[in-house]
Amino acid sequence: MSTFFTPGPAALFPTVEAHYAAAFRQNIGSISHRSGAFRKIYQHTDEQLRQLFALPKETAVLFTGSATEIWERAIMNSVEHESFHLVNGSFSKKFFDFSQELHKFAHAMHKPFGEGFDAAEVTVPEYAELICCTANETSSGVQMRAAEIHKIKKANKDKLVMVDMVSSAPYPNLDFNLVDSAMFSVQKAFGMPAGLGVWIANEKMLAKAERMKLHGETVGTYHSLPSLWENYKNFETPETPNVMGIYVLGKVAEDFNRIGVDVMRKETDRKAKALYDFAKKSDQFDIFVTNEPHRSATVVVLNCKQMAGDVIKQVQAKNDFILGAGYGKMKETQIRIANFPAVNLDQVEALIATLGSL
Amino acid sequence: MSTFFTPGPAALFPTVEAHYAAAFRQNIGSISHRSGAFRKIYQHTDEQLRQLFALPKETAVLFTGSATEIWERAIMNSVEHESFHLVNGSFSKKFFDFSQELHKFAHAMHKPFGEGFDAAEVTVPEYAELICCTANETSSGVQMRAAEIHKIKKANKDKLVMVDMVSSAPYPNLDFNLVDSAMFSVQKAFGMPAGLGVWIANEKMLAKAERMKLHGETVGTYHSLPSLWENYKNFETPETPNVMGIYVLGKVAEDFNRIGVDVMRKETDRKAKALYDFAKKSDQFDIFVTNEPHRSATVVVLNCKQMAGDVIKQVQAKNDFILGAGYGKMKETQIRIANFPAVNLDQVEALIATLGSL
Repeated sequence: MSTFFTPGPAALFPTVEAHYAAAFRQNIGSISHRSGAFRKIYQHTDEQLRQLFALPKETAVLFTGSATEIWERAIMNSVEHESFHLVNGSFSKKFFDFSQELHKFAHAMHKPFGEGFDAAEVTVPEYAELICCTANETSSGVQMRAAEIHKIKKANKDKLVMVDMVSSAPYPNLDFNLVDSAMFSVQKAFGMPAGLGVWIANEKMLAKAERMKLHGETVGTYHSLPSLWENYKNFETPETPNVMGIYVLGKVAEDFNRIGVDVMRKETDRKAKALYDFAKKSDQFDIFVTNEPHRSATVVVLNCKQMAGDVIKQVQAKNDFILGAGYGKMKETQIRIANFPAVNLDQVEALIATLGSL
Repeated sequence: MSTFFTPGPAALFPTVEAHYAAAFRQNIGSISHRSGAFRKIYQHTDEQLRQLFALPKETAVLFTGSATEIWERAIMNSVEHESFHLVNGSFSKKFFDFSQELHKFAHAMHKPFGEGFDAAEVTVPEYAELICCTANETSSGVQMRAAEIHKIKKANKDKLVMVDMVSSAPYPNLDFNLVDSAMFSVQKAFGMPAGLGVWIANEKMLAKAERMKLHGETVGTYHSLPSLWENYKNFETPETPNVMGIYVLGKVAEDFNRIGVDVMRKETDRKAKALYDFAKKSDQFDIFVTNEPHRSATVVVLNCKQMAGDVIKQVQAKNDFILGAGYGKMKETQIRIANFPAVNLDQVEALIATLGSL
């Protein structure tokens, strides 16, 4: 049995396959998306995610095909002229690129690959409407702590703040009374097959989209924020959505709530510490992110003395552990280890033992 | 065991659950979408769909979150100024609405609910760039025959023709040497859980999108036609897609090819004939679509003497057959019966016997 330590798609959470089997038994692949049965499913998933993320009433939980889609929809629905992006890796860069491709004026503050942001050093351009932060930059293993994101919002109350938490949710303890919007996809820390994006947005985001629509801006069609939200009021979606994915996400979120998100966060910290402690002592591996508070808890990036491809091959040959390669140019020199809830401390320790034996 | 005769989401094709189980066994929910393993899956699905639809080389098979998404992407990527829509029901109307919401000049020819189009009566506006036809209008059970669509293209060679074949593919025998683009979703006649749209587009569509981009038009970001196509060359997708859905679609298309699309089309005709013949003789039901060549083979719509809701309840109580309600305002007077490959002639005959016993 392979154990996936890849940063997404990733190891499936242990309950996922059984939830899919239950979905098939209940004909969830066949029920109408305009039926009461579907509305109950959406409502359950909404309730479980609200509990998990401690969402205030003024937020909606919306579904798209991917988190990538939400980058696009968020820009189209909340940026009339200018956006601002904290860019420190390939994914935060893509969010920035999307804004340009949509013909917005996109500002950015850039950091070298492997470095992160603190609020104190960030100056937000005066006319930026949306501030885009990345809670976890999957490409480089750099996190931006929730407290820093909150500080940015507090210093820019008139602006909207959006958080990409794709490869860390539900780890970042974001305060959704401050943060206006966030997004993630299910194939990372939720340990599900890919094909579903989750967009959390508050009423300020909605009001902005409605204002843009009034001004004659193109905010899209079925997946504009007003259209998603209007359907959400009824626990429906504008299109036929990934019904099974929405069902299984609700069940996994329920599993997470049963464990307790605080317990899960501590467990993530414990496993991350084990991995980083190992790397500190190792003569084969170095921690890539030097500034400790910026080190990701959910995607651990290590520099390798050997060729990274050889490390990956050996670890797979020895114990069928599947590691992530370094991103882009780092492919030959780095490995990425996902530290998601689907892998437990025993599995992480087994991986550490294997890496230590190389 | 419920048998779904609903027009989408619909009955699962009998092999689908086993294909999902195989996908779980092969870790298809965890593999990277940038891996050789994924590229092989995409390639296989591409090959099977190419065979099923007899696609020429100059076409690409692209994936989105839904068919609804493809309405939007197609307009954004192929209509600089004007589109033209044949509107005869709720779904063809939505395609038309999308073009307006995207601030294009959308022309339409309208027909009353329950009526269809023949090429001879269609006059395409001079400056329309994209002609949008609906092979099967799911709301009213009206089809537009492939031969009529082909005639429209032959009379308008300088324009692009796009076919919504959501609730009929692979039944319509479209000639993709003529038709420029088509789309469908997997939860209809392919009998899969929802969450995946399939966009077939040729190089003329791509060239148009590239020209629009050059002209400074907004064609979208990751799911612009140029972006999808560029990734497709490598059997990849811009975002992390519904990997399991793409895998299962390839397997179902392989199952369809093993049966043979011509055999499947004949079987669809045979089952449709049984349903319509029953309705002709029945004193409880009338065929809604009076013009025989416009009657859908895949979604049979019947007027009911009784309240439609009562018919649906009785049929479910008697044999656990799930029927579709009439669309929108027709909810109380009509039933819709999906005649997709997932239900065989025996099941259709059992349904007919049940309807006959009411």
